[in-house]
This record gives sequence, structure tokens and C-alpha cells, in this order.
Amino acid sequence: QLLTEIIASFQSKSLAGKHVLITAGPTFEPIDPVRGITNLSSGKMGYAIAQAAWEAGAKVTLISGPTALAQPYGVQRVNVQTAQQMHDAVMSALKAQVQDVFIAVAAVADWRVANASDQKIKKTSDSDTPQLEFAQNPDILALVAALPNAPYCVGFAAESENLLQYGAAKRIKKNIPLLVGNIGHHTFGKDDNELVLFDAHGHAELGRADKQTLATKLVSELAIRLKN
Amino acid sequence: QLLTEIIASFQSKSLAGKHVLITAGPTFEPIDPVRGITNLSSGKMGYAIAQAAWEAGAKVTLISGPTALAQPYGVQRVNVQTAQQMHDAVMSALKAQVQDVFIAVAAVADWRVANASDQKIKKTSDSDTPQLEFAQNPDILALVAALPNAPYCVGFAAESENLLQYGAAKRIKKNIPLLVGNIGHHTFGKDDNELVLFDAHGHAELGRADKQTLATKLVSELAIRLKN
Repeated sequence: QLLTEIIASFQSKSLAGKHVLITAGPTFEPIDPVRGITNLSSGKMGYAIAQAAWEAGAKVTLISGPTALAQPYGVQRVNVQTAQQMHDAVMSALKAQVQDVFIAVAAVADWRVANASDQKIKKTSDSDTPQLEFAQNPDILALVAALPNAPYCVGFAAESENLLQYGAAKRIKKNIPLLVGNIGHHTFGKDDNELVLFDAHGHAELGRADKQTLATKLVSELAIRLKN
Repeated sequence: QLLTEIIASFQSKSLAGKHVLITAGPTFEPIDPVRGITNLSSGKMGYAIAQAAWEAGAKVTLISGPTALAQPYGVQRVNVQTAQQMHDAVMSALKAQVQDVFIAVAAVADWRVANASDQKIKKTSDSDTPQLEFAQNPDILALVAALPNAPYCVGFAAESENLLQYGAAKRIKKNIPLLVGNIGHHTFGKDDNELVLFDAHGHAELGRADKQTLATKLVSELAIRLKN
């Protein structure tokens, strides 16, 4: 912790006084009391951005799905499980405090199980299989971006297929000022990544690096855009 | 590691020379390249038993689903993701080395997704939802217990409902000499637990304790039964 404080003291305080709200990690959508649907997001990228934003002087609230990661130093963390809980925690954080920036890094489940069971589903024969029905989850980023007085919204695109070609269109469709794309497959769980930023002026590649280095670069790019 | 060695030097070597094969953790059954079905097992109980068996002098092979736990000292770990992979790794371990004991602690998925997608399933409209079909996974414990020259098989029962009433019947149905039941709901992810043992002579309660203490007790009970 002392080391974190010392390192932070050398960072430029480009987000001093800003309130930054970040989502990170996967969500877990219950099938029954022990089973559920999740994804391979480790939360590392979101946690790294939370740490970098705090180091840049921001007050950071991190809404996190289930991860095995340590609490980032200096950051207020709220733990949630489902997409609906993440939505509710984001809306609560926006009510409790005007947020300058919202960075949606979490890999939120598009669907939840509509017929989740209160009891553990038991295997009753050698051939039975469960019948799951799905319902769409709220699109948290779209709902925040559509709010009156919305914070500066940053989205993440996990898909890599033709990202350079479609990134700009994606950003406009999502109606957000900044979209961050992961280039290259299978970033989930890895320690490094390669990011490209899409904004109204075009795109800029941040290159390949470990996630903490990329997070610091992203925060610098974000601070420049907040000043313009 | 030195501390682990010192602690181990004070334990009785009740499993000296024995080969013990253990499964632990959840499995992850893919829906598409990033999503999947899992369960809330943390792997803590299985890892604690692996550590306790090593401390008791056994050669331990641990077949582990995805967990955030550190490698247990002295134990050979094989990482797998799906129930089918866990089955294959168990059968390989049994082929490579005669195992004296098989302890099935893993929370293996009963079902896998039969129509898993090679590509990430995309949300194409505001109302579309995926259609998942399921197939049953192999019952690893039942298959091992049915082998000629099967190792001494120990099963785990995660359900708590009426366990004292149905535990004995469960053990016979599974055709194994020892069944370990978790008493009390929601042991998944917790640091403590309460176990009850069912064997041909009846049942014995190990009481409530942290998982490492229970694992050491379980290993002692196991060693007694192997000698009889």
C-alpha cells in the first residue's frame, strides 16, 4: 500500500477532483442456487483502470462482478453478481453522487435465465436435460448514456472481428463519445492486451502492453478528452 | 513452503506410500468462446483435502476445474475446464499410475451445452434470446467405481436436504465405500464447513470447522478405513 501511494505520488493528477464510476468483471446469472451462466472475463482490465484513475487523482467507485482480484487501493468497490444487480448498483451510484465519467468495462451478460429454479435442479434419469428460457438483460451503458446530464461515457468492445472497420460505427450506434476496442482474440484472463480508441475524431492505437500500462495510457487519453 | 514442510513433519504419515487421486473445483461448460455454465464451487474443500493427503504422506494428483486457488504444496495438479476433460484426465491418471484412493470432490456439471457455438453469440435484436440444448455429462465417480480393480472411492454430496436421512441410501446407490456429506446450505466458497461421513457401518459427524481442519480429519478417517 505504501508502494502504491509512492507510485501514485509520481503520476500526474490529470483526473484530480473527478468522480469516475467503473464496472468490471463478468456477471453470474443464476440457473439454480448453485449453477449459473458466466463468462471468462477476469476483471483485470477494469480493475487496472480503476487503479489508474485513482492514481490520477479521481474518486473511483468500482462496481464489480465476481472476480478473484484484490481490492484496488483507494477505490470504493461494490460487489454484485447479476447484470440486473450491476444495473441497480450503477444507478444507485449515479444517484448518490454526480459522476463525471462512466467506464463500462464489465462483460455483462446479454441474457439471464428467465426460469431460474429456487431449488437445485436434480438429474432424475439418465436422459433428462434442463429446459432453460432466457430474457434480455438491461443494456447498462446505453441506459446511462441516455440519461439527462449523462457522465462522459466510455464503452468497451470485446469482439475483435473487423474492429478497425466497424469500431467507428459501433461508437455512434452506442451513442458514446469514446469506445475502447480490444484487438486480438482471447484477451479475457490475460495479463496483457492491445487497445484501440474510437472517438469523434477517428481512431488511435494504444499498442500492446500489460493491462496496468494500458490503463494508465487510457486514463491520460481520457483526461485530455475531458479538458477539450 | 518451509512452514508447510515443518507442519507436515508433525503430521502422522497415515497415507505413506499411497497414491491418491482427487478432483476439485467447478467445471465450466462452454456456451460459446467466452460464455459458459459453471457453479459456485470454489475448490477450497478439494484443495484442502489434497494438501492434507500430501501432509499424511500420500502422492497426490489433483485434477482441478477453474479456480483462483494457489497450487497446493507437494501436489501434482492437472488443470481442466469441462466435465469431459475432467473425465479424460481422471482416466489418464488411473492409466498412468495405480491409484489407491479416488476422492471426487469436484462439483462436476451434470449437463453440457450440446449446441455450443464456435462464434460468440451476438444479440441481434431487442428480443432475441439463445436456444440452448443440453446433453448429460459422464458420471466420473460412477465410472471409476465400476472399474475392475477400482481404487477406494470417496464421493461428496453437496445437497443438505435430509442428508442424514438419505445419505446412507445415496452411498449404496453410488456403489462407493465412503460418502462425505456437507451439512448446512451454501458451503460453496466458504472457509468453513460441516461434514458427515457415511460408510457401511453407519454415519459419523466430523463437526463444524475450517476446511483445512476438516480435511485433516477426513484423511485420518480415510486412513483408518484403508487399514481395515
